[in-house]
Amino acid sequence: MNYFSSNFKLGILGGGQLGKMMLYDTRKFDIYTCVLDPSADAPSRLACDEFTIGDLLDYDTVINFGKQVDVLTFEIENVNVDALETLEKQGVKVFPSSKTLRTIQNKATQKLFYRDHNIPTADFSRFAYTSEIDEAIDHGGLSYPFVWKSARFGYDGTGVKVVRNLSDLTDLPNVECITEKLIPFKNELAVIVARNAQGDVKTYPVVEMEFHPEANQVEYVICPARIPDAIAKKAESVALKVAAEFKHVGLLAVEMFQTETDDILVNEVAPRPHNSGHYSIEASYTSQFEQQIRCILGLPLGNTESKVAGVMVNLVGAENHTGNVVYKNIENILAMDGVTPHIYGKKQTRPFRKMGHVTIVNKDIAVAREIAEQVKRTIEVISE
Amino acid sequence: MNYFSSNFKLGILGGGQLGKMMLYDTRKFDIYTCVLDPSADAPSRLACDEFTIGDLLDYDTVINFGKQVDVLTFEIENVNVDALETLEKQGVKVFPSSKTLRTIQNKATQKLFYRDHNIPTADFSRFAYTSEIDEAIDHGGLSYPFVWKSARFGYDGTGVKVVRNLSDLTDLPNVECITEKLIPFKNELAVIVARNAQGDVKTYPVVEMEFHPEANQVEYVICPARIPDAIAKKAESVALKVAAEFKHVGLLAVEMFQTETDDILVNEVAPRPHNSGHYSIEASYTSQFEQQIRCILGLPLGNTESKVAGVMVNLVGAENHTGNVVYKNIENILAMDGVTPHIYGKKQTRPFRKMGHVTIVNKDIAVAREIAEQVKRTIEVISE
Repeated sequence: MNYFSSNFKLGILGGGQLGKMMLYDTRKFDIYTCVLDPSADAPSRLACDEFTIGDLLDYDTVINFGKQVDVLTFEIENVNVDALETLEKQGVKVFPSSKTLRTIQNKATQKLFYRDHNIPTADFSRFAYTSEIDEAIDHGGLSYPFVWKSARFGYDGTGVKVVRNLSDLTDLPNVECITEKLIPFKNELAVIVARNAQGDVKTYPVVEMEFHPEANQVEYVICPARIPDAIAKKAESVALKVAAEFKHVGLLAVEMFQTETDDILVNEVAPRPHNSGHYSIEASYTSQFEQQIRCILGLPLGNTESKVAGVMVNLVGAENHTGNVVYKNIENILAMDGVTPHIYGKKQTRPFRKMGHVTIVNKDIAVAREIAEQVKRTIEVISE
Repeated sequence: MNYFSSNFKLGILGGGQLGKMMLYDTRKFDIYTCVLDPSADAPSRLACDEFTIGDLLDYDTVINFGKQVDVLTFEIENVNVDALETLEKQGVKVFPSSKTLRTIQNKATQKLFYRDHNIPTADFSRFAYTSEIDEAIDHGGLSYPFVWKSARFGYDGTGVKVVRNLSDLTDLPNVECITEKLIPFKNELAVIVARNAQGDVKTYPVVEMEFHPEANQVEYVICPARIPDAIAKKAESVALKVAAEFKHVGLLAVEMFQTETDDILVNEVAPRPHNSGHYSIEASYTSQFEQQIRCILGLPLGNTESKVAGVMVNLVGAENHTGNVVYKNIENILAMDGVTPHIYGKKQTRPFRKMGHVTIVNKDIAVAREIAEQVKRTIEVISE
């Protein structure tokens, strides 16, 4: 198949920010793209060749969209997986596969997959409804504290909560869920694995999510992670095992904990470009977005090494600000060395809404980290 | 003015490949863009917010397009400069200015500008018509060989020719033109100067255009140029002088000769992103396209240094091939380290038509140069 011709069509389910960033690379390679998204204002509405408005969870909509393309991918997990399976049977190349997505879509089956394939992960229990957790506690099968996770997407809420007592528990929605042992960890790490249909595989360097000391929120993604080589190698090999067991085609972002005893436990995976890989646009020889295209089109994989060190800061809406967004002091961060803001184009801000990200690159990771702190202190995402 | 809001509109005259590459950065910063181009198939038709089909040389068309935007720029010199001047008077910020563009648009006035401002350039003569050159030769005011250049754009032809005898001369179109002394040179160099309205100025590293030993055609653009530091400094200072004399706002690509006696002579300038700066997308901290946006919006300038060395190869249509384009062996170059093809999306190839470019980056310039040679030997732009 000649990808570099107008006879070839790549379909992307989801027209969000990840899709928007991927479209830069499809345009660079002049690959014809069709995007499906429910919102007429989706960031990908520009830059794709054909934009279709439609429900990603509706079987017929996804079938009708998918059957006109040669290769179909997604930039969001919450799509109709039955439709993907039908399309695969009809000869459309769906990457990553419907089987992998089905396993990942449900956090309970995702965890079972790890257990079945001897992939290290925190111990867990599975519940058809949150209300059943109570009983497990009563019977001594579970004790506080633990981490509660909704098994599925698609309800209004964060989906993850640390439960320390009964009152934490009663606030939760009554949905299919898992509980996980609360693991004290030194670091939260991530590795993006790239694998094409031929089975060629490469990993990006291990990155580190640095947490805010009080807010317990990821503040910086740092590449490379400031960890010993032996830990990095262990994390890489766990990530490679996960991708191999999935026979994955595409990017797989593997989030992991480095425990206090230096074990590596898989937290969860995302079968697509990922926030932990945004630094790659500026820092890597091949950005994660170009790499995703290489993977799913069966092209040779690009170099995953870094030209320079990178730090990524998420831009989220400030507390107490709701309304038309203003990026206060953005000019000031543009004056800092190696700083690139990515503005997602959402017109309205609200507290903690993800509005963009900023990448800071430098030959010296310590300098990049310092400038990242300045960036964070300087720019404010507020309302008019 | 808040550039990062939907109230702000950036207008771009010309929707070609340069505009297309600039739109990646306007999208990254979420800057609203309006593009005017005569072709419904222009590369920028995607990725801009508003696309208007219209003649760039028509006064009323440019006025009507320009009066709806806050800042107006161009990605091609061949636009109606009277309209730009009117728009400036009406309060539209036009960068680079109409005055600069008017001087540059005509190669005779461009050369006079250099002479008037003591900018080193090859000796030249000015002719209202090519047919007048004959007489100058007869009177001994000019002798073979010399370089003939059309003063203006907009006729079918290359615009530059080395004239060695009468028969070379008679083949030329009878238009306003200049003749230049033929200067034997060691190297053809270029420096891109970035300057914003506040007068902040930065230069990109000096690049070298490496010529094919026989075809006398630029084969590689190499950054940094493999020349002594003293020559690089001289080239930089000449380029800075040109930008300062123009009181330029925006990018100015200054092409220069390093003569056999190590003098630097300005050949010509382009007031926009330039082929000699394409390497910057992959190699520089700030690509020339992002830098152009920073310049014309009065934002702080980005770091012009390189993360890694870069070599750029133009992809042109192979001889004896006309028709639907095929990029033969593109998969093979994608397997090479640090190689990024940029495909411009023209559906038809013809001999020597510029169809794209390939950037090769590496920590070691010698390795990048070697891979560039492999790229050139491998990929072929042919017809089906």
